[in-house]
Amino acid sequence: MNACDSAAVIGLGLIGGSMARDLAARGVNVRAYDANPSHLANALREGVVHEALDGTLAGASRAEVIVVAVPVDATVEVLKRLAPLAANVKLITDVGSTKTRIVATANEVGLGECFVGAHPMAGGHQSGWDASREGLFAGAPVYLCPTQLVREAARCLADEFWRELGAHPLCMDAEHHDRQLAWTSHLPHIMSSALALALARSGVGRHDLGPGGRDVTRLAGSSPDVWAAIAHDNAEAIDGALAAAEVEIAAFRDALAQSDATALRERFSAARVWFDD
Amino acid sequence: MNACDSAAVIGLGLIGGSMARDLAARGVNVRAYDANPSHLANALREGVVHEALDGTLAGASRAEVIVVAVPVDATVEVLKRLAPLAANVKLITDVGSTKTRIVATANEVGLGECFVGAHPMAGGHQSGWDASREGLFAGAPVYLCPTQLVREAARCLADEFWRELGAHPLCMDAEHHDRQLAWTSHLPHIMSSALALALARSGVGRHDLGPGGRDVTRLAGSSPDVWAAIAHDNAEAIDGALAAAEVEIAAFRDALAQSDATALRERFSAARVWFDD
Repeated sequence: MNACDSAAVIGLGLIGGSMARDLAARGVNVRAYDANPSHLANALREGVVHEALDGTLAGASRAEVIVVAVPVDATVEVLKRLAPLAANVKLITDVGSTKTRIVATANEVGLGECFVGAHPMAGGHQSGWDASREGLFAGAPVYLCPTQLVREAARCLADEFWRELGAHPLCMDAEHHDRQLAWTSHLPHIMSSALALALARSGVGRHDLGPGGRDVTRLAGSSPDVWAAIAHDNAEAIDGALAAAEVEIAAFRDALAQSDATALRERFSAARVWFDD
Repeated sequence: MNACDSAAVIGLGLIGGSMARDLAARGVNVRAYDANPSHLANALREGVVHEALDGTLAGASRAEVIVVAVPVDATVEVLKRLAPLAANVKLITDVGSTKTRIVATANEVGLGECFVGAHPMAGGHQSGWDASREGLFAGAPVYLCPTQLVREAARCLADEFWRELGAHPLCMDAEHHDRQLAWTSHLPHIMSSALALALARSGVGRHDLGPGGRDVTRLAGSSPDVWAAIAHDNAEAIDGALAAAEVEIAAFRDALAQSDATALRERFSAARVWFDD
């Protein structure tokens, strides 16, 4: 027995599309909306989505679970649109990489009892419907950030819903989530993008890199819409993390300027100790 | 018919060990030295090395080709030791990530006629004999930096030798190589290590990262000996590349401080344009 028999998925990108595929494969009735009509048409034709919603999202009101899978700035707008429609919905969840503003918005618009924010640590640098696939969440941690008003039934359903997709739920306060993710996800992402921009300006292409350099710059290929919204939403915490990275780069530059082989070795050794830990 | 029937490999780490495996598999007689006696013993027992050399390297004089596969600072010392032994050697090559000082040293110690510096763009963050494997160089670019005094026969042999291992030789001036590699290899490496150190200081472990963050920090696991020597040897060019990365990080921080969503989107978009190019 599934956690739900019907779901509405708003946004059929990498994450929403993969979720729709998993749900449909489990026999869940999936209705969906995407701003790109051709993605929606493809999802219908492939049998992954059973009913297309229009931009009002009105048809989502008849689903047991609603998943909002759009960039985090757009999630806030979608929650406002869902507020008057959700009287009979058991659970609304999302997939954004930042949680504080989204959870606060859910409370403000009156969705606090049924909203459990979620952030699955799955995906990759690819984006869009064409990158979506079944099984994306298998084995992935998913942070769950409920509102303070959430009903116990909604909280349990969120846990069950994500477990059925193969994810491992970890409950976490939204502010704590955003501070932690600034380091574990947003910082690596911006370092990768900053490196890409430095290489671009110096005329070095990605094909000039070896396998190591290609790995370090892989996240530069991610969706600009998704990541601009994340960075904007979690700016203060990310700025602190970037400042810490600047300190480490400056220390490397000092050691280089002083031709200090011992200091260089100590720095690479400390990095490797962290890696092996 | 092989490019050579006998080879001496100095250093049985990831690169030297993999090369010894490839050569032995092709029927080449391999003699080798490694400062770690147990690595040498393992290589002999596995039949990858047919004769162990002692620290004088005297036995290398009877090989047609000598490959120096030790960190770049040690390569300079090994070349000095080889100088009086190499009268009948057809080719000496190496595998270091910096080339200017090594090629200059080969000239200075009288090995200019038979030395062709090499830098295969293969490997990974693993290091040591236990990480070595057959086929490591298949499909990898290898930069060849001959001395100005090199004999045509040695240059041709270097080309043939590396092609037989599956690598694609690209001839390049040593100074040009080092300036280019500061961007394509050394910069990504130090960015990865600096990120690792920033995460270490904030108490974030590698297991806390998602797949993207793990990729960006992968190079932090590389050999500290190898990389301290590379950084020290190519300090000026690397410093310039790090300065360019600092400019890009500072621009991200400016956009975050000003809450400038448009600037953030433009930066992530430019990084993705580079990625897709």
